[in-house]
Amino acid sequence: MYDCIIIGKGPCGISCAIYLKRFNKNVLVIGSNYGSLEKASVIENYYGVGSISGLELAKKGEEQAKNLNIEVITDEVLEIEGLTVKTKTNEYNAKAIFLATGKTNKVNIPGINDIVVSYCATCDGFFFRKKKIALIGYGDYMLHEYDVLKNFTSDITVFTNENINSEYVNGKITKLFSNDNKKCVEVNNTVYEFDGIFIAANNDSLAISKHLGLVVDDNNKIMVENYKTNIDGIFAGGDAIGGLDQVSTSVSDGAKAAIEINKFLKEE
Amino acid sequence: MYDCIIIGKGPCGISCAIYLKRFNKNVLVIGSNYGSLEKASVIENYYGVGSISGLELAKKGEEQAKNLNIEVITDEVLEIEGLTVKTKTNEYNAKAIFLATGKTNKVNIPGINDIVVSYCATCDGFFFRKKKIALIGYGDYMLHEYDVLKNFTSDITVFTNENINSEYVNGKITKLFSNDNKKCVEVNNTVYEFDGIFIAANNDSLAISKHLGLVVDDNNKIMVENYKTNIDGIFAGGDAIGGLDQVSTSVSDGAKAAIEINKFLKEE
Repeated sequence: MYDCIIIGKGPCGISCAIYLKRFNKNVLVIGSNYGSLEKASVIENYYGVGSISGLELAKKGEEQAKNLNIEVITDEVLEIEGLTVKTKTNEYNAKAIFLATGKTNKVNIPGINDIVVSYCATCDGFFFRKKKIALIGYGDYMLHEYDVLKNFTSDITVFTNENINSEYVNGKITKLFSNDNKKCVEVNNTVYEFDGIFIAANNDSLAISKHLGLVVDDNNKIMVENYKTNIDGIFAGGDAIGGLDQVSTSVSDGAKAAIEINKFLKEE
Repeated sequence: MYDCIIIGKGPCGISCAIYLKRFNKNVLVIGSNYGSLEKASVIENYYGVGSISGLELAKKGEEQAKNLNIEVITDEVLEIEGLTVKTKTNEYNAKAIFLATGKTNKVNIPGINDIVVSYCATCDGFFFRKKKIALIGYGDYMLHEYDVLKNFTSDITVFTNENINSEYVNGKITKLFSNDNKKCVEVNNTVYEFDGIFIAANNDSLAISKHLGLVVDDNNKIMVENYKTNIDGIFAGGDAIGGLDQVSTSVSDGAKAAIEINKFLKEE
């Protein structure tokens, strides 16, 4: 049982871990990548570091945590249930969870904003019992969502850029749209009709917040008060809650959130 | 004429300067030292930097700013009048001022909190016209305050740890106290009586805020809303406004304040 599991190993997550470790807390950091930071080719505006690539800075941060004997594992979180975090290979329990899951990944499929799609098999699968559904996505998270959806229906068509299974539909999705009560997926010139469409693009902030039932704002940022979400024991910070999308503010969020988490752990 | 003069070359001031420079603003950073940061022997909790002394980090930060062609000068600010900043050797004008002046230095003289003392010759000198006053302090700032006080009275006794002038009283002040309407300074076993006592311990946040008429809280932290003080064009951040006294939060404050200052400059 960890005091706190931190999801995300970018600046916010690592900063939080370092502070909690200082408070003598038993923490675990789980992250599959460094999020938007690793896409920054040069960062020059983070005090004390000078010119550095985002990836290099992210690696330095992870190294720094490990040097302080903080456990950092590279794995993808597939589900959070209560205060249990499930990855592909393992399950971890904690007294608190800190979501430093970064920016919400936008799924850039033409038409996606004009129709209702679902981002959470666990939350919405039930509404599509014995219905015909599409699952658009990739990776372990898509497979996880597929497993969940199979509990509700056997009529699932998977659209993916990966050639895992011959039953999957490959190819670039050119459009999503509604037709009468049907949801349509157009790939090249073929149109597929469904009762519902599920997106499993990545296990990002949005998917996690939908799964957990966290309150988000119009930009899908997790709403917090002093880094506390609407669910007891679950905290969030950094780009996942909005703000400036800057290393400096994410690092500061991590530190401040650690102080709130430490208070929460004391009260427990 | 600078767009913004930043007072303080610690993490908050330098971070603000870097961001303003990014916004293509003409900035000047003035600082006499690195404040509380240079007293930290080891910092391990600032993301991306690893184990480093406070002084080393501060120097790296200053270097980083200079590498981005930001003008950083080491000088002591003696007075701010309107949006003009006066140092010992020069005067600078700006459209905005950012106070990243750090922690309020506590003056640790026994009894100082039990009597009323003044921290600003310009503000309070007038009330002691032709009265007998004590000036406790050191350095250029003390000399500056001395010059101001001379406009009001010639009966000034300077208590200092520096042996500048034979008229000054040297020696450790053992107590400050009130006796009837008199304010008393005890050095060794000698008691000196005055109508008023002025403190010129350092040109820190407290002195600056008193001079400017900034609203401060019970802990003498400058009160701000979105880094704006109660005076138009004057902003403050970092330890000067309170918070966690951490490098990470000061750096974040600097970045966020820069965004507010940039907005202000656009509106001008």
